[in-house]
Amino acid sequence: MSSTSDGMISQLKFNSDGLIPAVVQDHKDGTVLMVAYMNRESFRKTLESGVATFWSRSRKKLWIKGETSGNVQKVKAILADCDKDTLVLRVDQVGGAACHTGNRSCFHFESDGKKWVEKSKPLFDPKKVYQK
Amino acid sequence: MSSTSDGMISQLKFNSDGLIPAVVQDHKDGTVLMVAYMNRESFRKTLESGVATFWSRSRKKLWIKGETSGNVQKVKAILADCDKDTLVLRVDQVGGAACHTGNRSCFHFESDGKKWVEKSKPLFDPKKVYQK
Repeated sequence: MSSTSDGMISQLKFNSDGLIPAVVQDHKDGTVLMVAYMNRESFRKTLESGVATFWSRSRKKLWIKGETSGNVQKVKAILADCDKDTLVLRVDQVGGAACHTGNRSCFHFESDGKKWVEKSKPLFDPKKVYQK
Repeated sequence: MSSTSDGMISQLKFNSDGLIPAVVQDHKDGTVLMVAYMNRESFRKTLESGVATFWSRSRKKLWIKGETSGNVQKVKAILADCDKDTLVLRVDQVGGAACHTGNRSCFHFESDGKKWVEKSKPLFDPKKVYQK
């Protein structure tokens, strides 16, 4: 079945695993929230639904980010680089936190030149959000 | 020879090619300028020199970004994610443009839902900057 996104997908360069990295950035202040991977289907789903959808490399399945926690990412813009082998998603992060640890950004370790220092404090308790 | 960065490097997860992706972001306004890859040596060099240094996958050599054009990236912060398998560099982009096309960011194509639309205009003429 053809889709309106087929032309865009055909220009993207997926790696040997059929994946393309996507940098997810807060559309308001530019904070890099996470980096995840998309296959063709997740790119199509993202475009159709407006909600960031990835390929989970660990679970080997389509992954609607925030499906469990409710913290979905509403996509405001999708950018591609000059090589068309990397994407940037500008998103509205529902709930404020993108990281499964409860932190706003997955990038919450900063180099002090000698070691990684944990910087931010969790916005939610992952035990409560992800409890069965 | 041991280095002060060895402890940080030992915590990073490099992929099967010995590389880790690094998102490069303007430290002032958060614009994502490019995504490149580092090996252990380039991470060490970046930390020691304060200038973003990558591993060029196409040329298979250490790559001081801006070595040819003069548009180096002065590193203001290095962040790692919770999995320690991706980095973010917050940089001061000398010359304003990070892309070899002369554009400020490599991510100068934006989806309009059906096709990729080129958004920005080059800040420099690559033919002049990269001439021999």
